[in-house]
Amino acid sequence: MAAGSLTSRADDFPRWYQEVVAGAEMAENGPVRGTMVIRPWGYAIWERVQAALDARIKATGAENAYFPLFIPESFLHREAEHVEGFSPELAVVTHGGGKALEEPVVVRPTSETVVNSFFAKWIQSHRDLPLLINQWANVVRWELRPRLFLRTTEFLWQEGHTAHASEAEARAYSLRIMRDVYVATMVDVMAIPVLVGRKTERERFAGAIRTWTAEAMMGDGKALQMGTSHELGQNFARAFDISYSGPDGTQELPWQTSWGVSSRLIGALIMVHGDDFGLRLPPALAPQEVVVMAVRDDEGVARAAGAIADDLRAAGVRVRLDDRVETGFGRRSIDWELKGVPVRVEVGPRDLLEGQVTVVARHTRQKTQVALAEVVPRTTALLARVGPELEAEAAALLAGRTRRVERVEEAIEAGMEGFARVPWRLLGPEGEARLAGETLSVRCLEGPDGGLLADDGDESAVAVVGRSY
Amino acid sequence: MAAGSLTSRADDFPRWYQEVVAGAEMAENGPVRGTMVIRPWGYAIWERVQAALDARIKATGAENAYFPLFIPESFLHREAEHVEGFSPELAVVTHGGGKALEEPVVVRPTSETVVNSFFAKWIQSHRDLPLLINQWANVVRWELRPRLFLRTTEFLWQEGHTAHASEAEARAYSLRIMRDVYVATMVDVMAIPVLVGRKTERERFAGAIRTWTAEAMMGDGKALQMGTSHELGQNFARAFDISYSGPDGTQELPWQTSWGVSSRLIGALIMVHGDDFGLRLPPALAPQEVVVMAVRDDEGVARAAGAIADDLRAAGVRVRLDDRVETGFGRRSIDWELKGVPVRVEVGPRDLLEGQVTVVARHTRQKTQVALAEVVPRTTALLARVGPELEAEAAALLAGRTRRVERVEEAIEAGMEGFARVPWRLLGPEGEARLAGETLSVRCLEGPDGGLLADDGDESAVAVVGRSY
Repeated sequence: MAAGSLTSRADDFPRWYQEVVAGAEMAENGPVRGTMVIRPWGYAIWERVQAALDARIKATGAENAYFPLFIPESFLHREAEHVEGFSPELAVVTHGGGKALEEPVVVRPTSETVVNSFFAKWIQSHRDLPLLINQWANVVRWELRPRLFLRTTEFLWQEGHTAHASEAEARAYSLRIMRDVYVATMVDVMAIPVLVGRKTERERFAGAIRTWTAEAMMGDGKALQMGTSHELGQNFARAFDISYSGPDGTQELPWQTSWGVSSRLIGALIMVHGDDFGLRLPPALAPQEVVVMAVRDDEGVARAAGAIADDLRAAGVRVRLDDRVETGFGRRSIDWELKGVPVRVEVGPRDLLEGQVTVVARHTRQKTQVALAEVVPRTTALLARVGPELEAEAAALLAGRTRRVERVEEAIEAGMEGFARVPWRLLGPEGEARLAGETLSVRCLEGPDGGLLADDGDESAVAVVGRSY
Repeated sequence: MAAGSLTSRADDFPRWYQEVVAGAEMAENGPVRGTMVIRPWGYAIWERVQAALDARIKATGAENAYFPLFIPESFLHREAEHVEGFSPELAVVTHGGGKALEEPVVVRPTSETVVNSFFAKWIQSHRDLPLLINQWANVVRWELRPRLFLRTTEFLWQEGHTAHASEAEARAYSLRIMRDVYVATMVDVMAIPVLVGRKTERERFAGAIRTWTAEAMMGDGKALQMGTSHELGQNFARAFDISYSGPDGTQELPWQTSWGVSSRLIGALIMVHGDDFGLRLPPALAPQEVVVMAVRDDEGVARAAGAIADDLRAAGVRVRLDDRVETGFGRRSIDWELKGVPVRVEVGPRDLLEGQVTVVARHTRQKTQVALAEVVPRTTALLARVGPELEAEAAALLAGRTRRVERVEEAIEAGMEGFARVPWRLLGPEGEARLAGETLSVRCLEGPDGGLLADDGDESAVAVVGRSY
């Protein structure tokens, strides 16, 4: 079992996924069905994703806030499509402080309703716009077929909620979030290429007039919805009585957006970059970029390993020194591979005699003998290559498993293996309904050349069809 | 109404507090009783408190993780004192996904039970110790008399959970958290002096063998429990079957700790540093350290204000440029005072003619004319003084309202006005019970000279008595 006893991805992708999540000590099932414990290795990666997103969200002018976990059940009923979309998934608190509650409260599945009940108070004048709010929070959607990170009853996410003076401004902001926050983080930080497009009416968010989505292809050819940004029109403004006096004194309704990404991004990271030996992390997200391993219990080895770790740290690299020589070197190497640390520096007595160490790139598994004086520059140069190379590999998979087709039957066939690109005018809502019967769906509508659709005229739109998580 | 129409602290402290929370746009009541919306100004302060704590927690070796919001009701019952302590405050979910649940789940009031159910799996060998875990999360305790930040049904906090090989190590770690994380943040970052001591048996955490606490005096002389660190002994290890094989192969139970501080710290910040004009923020916690105000609509003013803001930013200061000249200068000044921004730089046409601006220190309300070339050094020098001066002021209040007494009656009298320090051997559990009838309590037991009690022999202990939030 060369692959550290993992099931191979090709043999059983879902089982491989579970084994990586467990083996890399990223997460476990919680005691209540569908809930999840995120262990330190998984959480440290999430913290880095969070930090990347948070800085970009703030750069758009949004401010963080926090709204309550508990929402009166009646709030959900105010927006008709919204309640229809979320009712089947709600967790309901009926007792508090030892008594039955007069009105049951729901545990937030998303916060549009409670946020907008406050926007109604905070938005009075055109000077109060745009109002740009984000929150980091846990949300709950009762999940019958849970899978760690991908679909859990409770998950962690950020949800943005904004109000603008015009539809054009709301759309521009919702696209800015998609492009400058989500796509920038997914591509530049997570090294995951994504398709960006509009959801069809069938697939869009309950209560939105337009939903923009970023979709990525996982290692098994299936799609994962990575994040969405919704134009809500004036639906919630009407439902929650949000209005403001314009510059000329007239009462106006604001145009709104909401947008979110969640801890499922960690699932994407595993399923896009993982291989038969475990996780492969882009350095930007790795809790440790380099692990310096003392191969065995030896004074010279300990000294050299410590010195290399210090030198790398001084060069600004996040380093872990692994001197647990009482545990076998093979066992430790397999564990670090599983955890996806981008670079291992193996310090052994034989190499040291020749004034060198072994540098191992996790993503290629290539080993190189490197002279002691060269360890820092060679390691930092290698680290700089990992992200782009992982991204190129994922982009090649995406391109290789995407087919342009012209007929619904072909779309079904191609969508089973990867993504099918089919003109929307040849598919349409009826074709879309047929896909559903085959466990396929339209992941998004793109422009004819893969760019964003300029408007709602869908004549030229191309539907991206695939199976999805 | 010189004080921006706030109630004065001396007249009605609770009302003043509410008005500051609302006027500084820090928080509002949520729609479900006892819940809270933390608005951007309040949340940005909390983010800075969080960052200060998080860095110090990680420096002790603890790692962040995340455990589920929902806990099976049966878990709570495993530790007898713990369930007794928390049962009256629980929120219970009885329905999920449209169905009644087979076993109701509680919304976590704290996570000892679920964390320890996982520690039982993760701790097998002495090599797995110490296990040092922290989580940032929301928790719920049904609250009948809620008050924003101080006592809310849902609040934000961090909770640490650790397991150690010996009682001495557990105690050392629990005290290290108190000293190097909590007290360091409270004093050095929040500028709030605290007393550190042990809780009496009556006041300690449900399930702990020792609870260490940091207590501060608010502006009205009442005490606020700022944070606690508990030694849990082997109580939870027994309740959750946590054991490990020692170096010599014997099965051992670990010794545990748990510790937490919450968003109530924001309430303390207001009640310690606030004055009749609103909040006063130590620069380390201020979302904006300086606001540069254009006094009126004037081209020269706009240019000078912009240049000053740029210069301050270049010097590493967090600056907001307030050029909303369509709103009256007086209104804006009152708002920035309410929000507690440490320094205002007022740029007006008359001052500019003389080559100067007006620099206002929020904490003293002192105004100084400063030459343009001196604005950056004078402002940064002023910022450096704010934290220490706020802390000195709070320390003077604490000293001035603390009395050493020898009898229970005196303790009751002094405790009504501030803190009474009374020898524990003269008070004892019976005296403590009498205090409760007078809405007083023993906030902590200190050593005779105000230091930490060395051991559990309480002969020399001094009880600090006060009213509390």
